[in-house]
Amino acid sequence: MSEPDPGLLSLNTATVRQQWTLPQIIDGCARHGIRGIAPWRDQVATAGLKETAARIRDAGLVVSGLCRGGMFPATDREGRRAALDDNRRAVDEALALRAQCLVLVVGGLPKSRDGKIESKDLAGAREMVRDGIGELLLYARDAGMPLAIEPLHPMYAADRACVNTMEHANDLCDELGPGLGLAVDAYHVWWDPHLEREIERAGGANPSRLLAYHICDWLVPTTDLLTDRGMMGDGVIDLRLLRSWMEAAGFRGCHEVEIFSANNWWKRDPDEVLATCKARHLECS
Amino acid sequence: MSEPDPGLLSLNTATVRQQWTLPQIIDGCARHGIRGIAPWRDQVATAGLKETAARIRDAGLVVSGLCRGGMFPATDREGRRAALDDNRRAVDEALALRAQCLVLVVGGLPKSRDGKIESKDLAGAREMVRDGIGELLLYARDAGMPLAIEPLHPMYAADRACVNTMEHANDLCDELGPGLGLAVDAYHVWWDPHLEREIERAGGANPSRLLAYHICDWLVPTTDLLTDRGMMGDGVIDLRLLRSWMEAAGFRGCHEVEIFSANNWWKRDPDEVLATCKARHLECS
Repeated sequence: MSEPDPGLLSLNTATVRQQWTLPQIIDGCARHGIRGIAPWRDQVATAGLKETAARIRDAGLVVSGLCRGGMFPATDREGRRAALDDNRRAVDEALALRAQCLVLVVGGLPKSRDGKIESKDLAGAREMVRDGIGELLLYARDAGMPLAIEPLHPMYAADRACVNTMEHANDLCDELGPGLGLAVDAYHVWWDPHLEREIERAGGANPSRLLAYHICDWLVPTTDLLTDRGMMGDGVIDLRLLRSWMEAAGFRGCHEVEIFSANNWWKRDPDEVLATCKARHLECS
Repeated sequence: MSEPDPGLLSLNTATVRQQWTLPQIIDGCARHGIRGIAPWRDQVATAGLKETAARIRDAGLVVSGLCRGGMFPATDREGRRAALDDNRRAVDEALALRAQCLVLVVGGLPKSRDGKIESKDLAGAREMVRDGIGELLLYARDAGMPLAIEPLHPMYAADRACVNTMEHANDLCDELGPGLGLAVDAYHVWWDPHLEREIERAGGANPSRLLAYHICDWLVPTTDLLTDRGMMGDGVIDLRLLRSWMEAAGFRGCHEVEIFSANNWWKRDPDEVLATCKARHLECS
């Protein structure tokens, strides 16, 4: 298996969000020769949408995705409508940034307005997700913005995303039709015994559903459910094998590095982090 | 949905292992009117196998399972043979304790003799697990001791068990034949969109593969991957729904409470823990 094309490396801005502002991250990508970026909406809001779009364009960066829409389930109709309104704004922002897709972290069990989980009805949450994506799709299709469901690791089923397997995401794509695809994040799906089959299934759809590919690594031990993700090569995921499956399924898009790491990478010099991302992308992914 | 039969409550001894010795736990179960117990092998070894078997018999307790066999993958042949030898001893101990099954936590990625993960070959680990169970089955069948594969949550795929779904466990039962079944642990499988289907599949086999049922709860947030499990009712799992699926699939066995809780239940008065298990079993499961 050959090394990946360094030109496909993209930086999810969460990777250095503790150290740098979004303008600093954009400049950092340009300085390090990283050709792709995937910003988060809160950072975009802080830096300004137009200013950010212009700065990314000037830096010549590809936007491999905007993070994120989703969070559809809510305990009442108003909460679900508010989520949908916010998702439509996310589509608009993704368009303004010329993002390749809007990434959807679909949400977990229904929460009340103050963020408390109020229900144990997981099947019901999954219906709310299906209905929410279905409604958002009407808007996103008109706008020409692809929506990428990101199946999250099952340890986030309660509070972040109740779509936890590629199969479930593919099933949603089957049901809801065009304009919808997947963001495959190695961290979330590496354990799945059906991973190769479901990547193939997603890539075999017409058009391909493989809209985004996120990489990092699973550390052993993992000390925190949220913020202890590893740099490629520091954990147990066979990232080269996973890339080979993505490529065999026809994926030619960016390899987006997304690392939440409170005790390691978020504490380092961000220039060192970017240089390490570049090196490890070549060596280990 | 009606309350569960209090006579089906069983205590996995891990729930109070920080406070009590195994003899104390056995006495505690008898004192609280808990009719089932599931001890761990290290505790049995400390207390003595014969002594433990006699004490459990004298207390009139059912042994809903022995924890645990498994951990099949290893980097070399000797390591795998050592695992198999240990598993045969576990079968013998389960027999001596008159356990209803030997629970298998199958192991994750292959480790070297000093416990270090030495491979990223997850598919290979799964083959080692299949081969190891297959070989152990020859011994366990002769002995008449059912083996119960416990699918573990995907967050343990690397270091504890690379069988992470009921479907995978059912597939192994299909492949390896009689004498093999499943331990369904709510904590590990509650998130699975195919859970109801796979419980039905396991219960519909002849004989039923539903050998054990473990309960606790999934807390939000979960602060530790290993030792932050919740008491029934304190988390987000719809345990009553899950029990209804088990019962619809014909399961009539024990409801075994297994809670690893470094910062809460392991710090409490164990009599309070047992009383709470009894109350929450009725109210919330």
